[in-house]
Amino acid sequence: MRTYRLILVGFGNVGQGFAQILREQGEELATQGLQAVIVAVSDLLKGSVYRPAGFSPAELLDTVQAGKSLETLDATAKGWDAQRSIAECEADVLVELSYTDLKTGEPAVSHVRQALQRGMHAITTNKGPVALHYPELAELAAEKGVQFGIEGTVMSGTPSMRLGSELLGAAGVTKIQGIVNGTTNYILSQMEDGASYSDALADAQAQGYAEADPTGDVEGFDAAGKVVILANVLMGAKISMADVDRQGITKLTSRDIAEARAEKTRWKLIASVEKTADGVKASVKPTLISMTHPLASVGGATNAVTYSTKLLGDVTLIGPGAGRLATGYAILGDLMAIHRSA
Amino acid sequence: MRTYRLILVGFGNVGQGFAQILREQGEELATQGLQAVIVAVSDLLKGSVYRPAGFSPAELLDTVQAGKSLETLDATAKGWDAQRSIAECEADVLVELSYTDLKTGEPAVSHVRQALQRGMHAITTNKGPVALHYPELAELAAEKGVQFGIEGTVMSGTPSMRLGSELLGAAGVTKIQGIVNGTTNYILSQMEDGASYSDALADAQAQGYAEADPTGDVEGFDAAGKVVILANVLMGAKISMADVDRQGITKLTSRDIAEARAEKTRWKLIASVEKTADGVKASVKPTLISMTHPLASVGGATNAVTYSTKLLGDVTLIGPGAGRLATGYAILGDLMAIHRSA
Repeated sequence: MRTYRLILVGFGNVGQGFAQILREQGEELATQGLQAVIVAVSDLLKGSVYRPAGFSPAELLDTVQAGKSLETLDATAKGWDAQRSIAECEADVLVELSYTDLKTGEPAVSHVRQALQRGMHAITTNKGPVALHYPELAELAAEKGVQFGIEGTVMSGTPSMRLGSELLGAAGVTKIQGIVNGTTNYILSQMEDGASYSDALADAQAQGYAEADPTGDVEGFDAAGKVVILANVLMGAKISMADVDRQGITKLTSRDIAEARAEKTRWKLIASVEKTADGVKASVKPTLISMTHPLASVGGATNAVTYSTKLLGDVTLIGPGAGRLATGYAILGDLMAIHRSA
Repeated sequence: MRTYRLILVGFGNVGQGFAQILREQGEELATQGLQAVIVAVSDLLKGSVYRPAGFSPAELLDTVQAGKSLETLDATAKGWDAQRSIAECEADVLVELSYTDLKTGEPAVSHVRQALQRGMHAITTNKGPVALHYPELAELAAEKGVQFGIEGTVMSGTPSMRLGSELLGAAGVTKIQGIVNGTTNYILSQMEDGASYSDALADAQAQGYAEADPTGDVEGFDAAGKVVILANVLMGAKISMADVDRQGITKLTSRDIAEARAEKTRWKLIASVEKTADGVKASVKPTLISMTHPLASVGGATNAVTYSTKLLGDVTLIGPGAGRLATGYAILGDLMAIHRSA
């Protein structure tokens, strides 16, 4: 049995989803020789606690679900910020789940860098540090002999990164196209069913898919971050957000969508990255695709990626792109990969 | 650098596709510390040769592509049957590519059993031994500390088995539904475009998708073999061909297909396996699916599998189900897995 001592920075939906998985699958994981112990949680709103012997997932979940601060729990230390938790908790793995900032990547980048420098593995579902600093952080992890798990940054727990690297890498991936933003795909699906853009957006906001300020989704920034991750992780590129030819869905009209339908095509916000003679070309833009393309049938908030490969031709993966348990599963997948490589 | 000495039993399309991949990617594999050397090939039609220092993929391919017997090559031994090759070649890996027999599994089962018993890894793309004897052969491999690679038996090189086990196993797979026979899917697609069943079948035969006696495909035997493999490998079941509720596509009429279309549904030959309170239930039958289901858009000879999981909901993989390079890639994937575990 190998025990991994975990620090969770951030305990919102994803952190709670991961805790729920550990609560329900802890025994199953133990049969595979893996024991995950949460020794610290540091969350700006829910409180920060450290207990060397670990917290049970159930006590953490019960506390926040009762609306109480984590600091009502028995703990050796309380109120530490993330930096101090990483410095003093002697954990094996940082699980970085703070909020996403695609401009600076902070505070997540600093947390991940600090953990890797201390020789801790780092897992994140946060696009910021990966879209902005993957080459540097991956190199640091390699230098320290630890892993940097990033499965949850694209398609949440649907294993798009590991499929593309471990299972399709040797087939020669030359191009990746995907629907990697569920909010815009939901809006486009609603518009196909007759809704106006503004009604569809309001609906997406009501469903919790879109934020109050929807710019990050509808202008394609979120998808652009994911394109950078696909390019840099799966194609060994070193591009940045500015290299992505980005256009959102805000200029698409109901009429465009109806016209496409009449011609048996469909508008989708397609994220694309392709190896060319001039290097990797990356874009996010509304694209007309044929109804027979595997991405055409991907409706609602579902995500999908098509990998074009030399040996297999096209391989498509379709699955959830968000969700509490789905994203929590990404963390489990990264933790199991750390365990396999141990 | 780790060298794997390979025996290829069978050198038809798949064996040649694998040799072509080794010819083109040998240097790339070497950078990953893996060297694959073909020390023997035993094929009933193309001849049987053994050379301890190995044959280059190019000389094997050039010889058969020139229409010459492999026995025209310089070799230490010629004319050995598969059994003798396995017994005397001191290889590390048997690559079993002889013809498929879903009734007895022979001669492939005997070859695989013999190799595993000698402590050799075995890789096969042949459904026979896996559909009929997986539990026994997997146990034998485990006992001998070697691997039994079977990725190519479902969806050829599209990594459906490894996705289902390594990447989705921990998500709790409760049901698998798929289009796992390209021939029948091609026929149904042609019928949707207006062809009669007999014209569509003749077309599939002309394209090389269907054999002269199409029974194995159109009556669902091929798909049933794959259902058994999915159940036994991914769900730990121990079912056999007789446990599959099997029905082919021969009773579907053009009228059925047109009626489905009018109701925005589509007939697909769906292979299904599900965990129930009464054990695993497996079937292959024509099934009406909604146009919004990810499997509905899978046309022509393409294959697809939808895994229903506890943590992620549905995840679908779409890709080729046949092809020389695609199936050759399955062998490479299994070989790389052997290498990773070494």
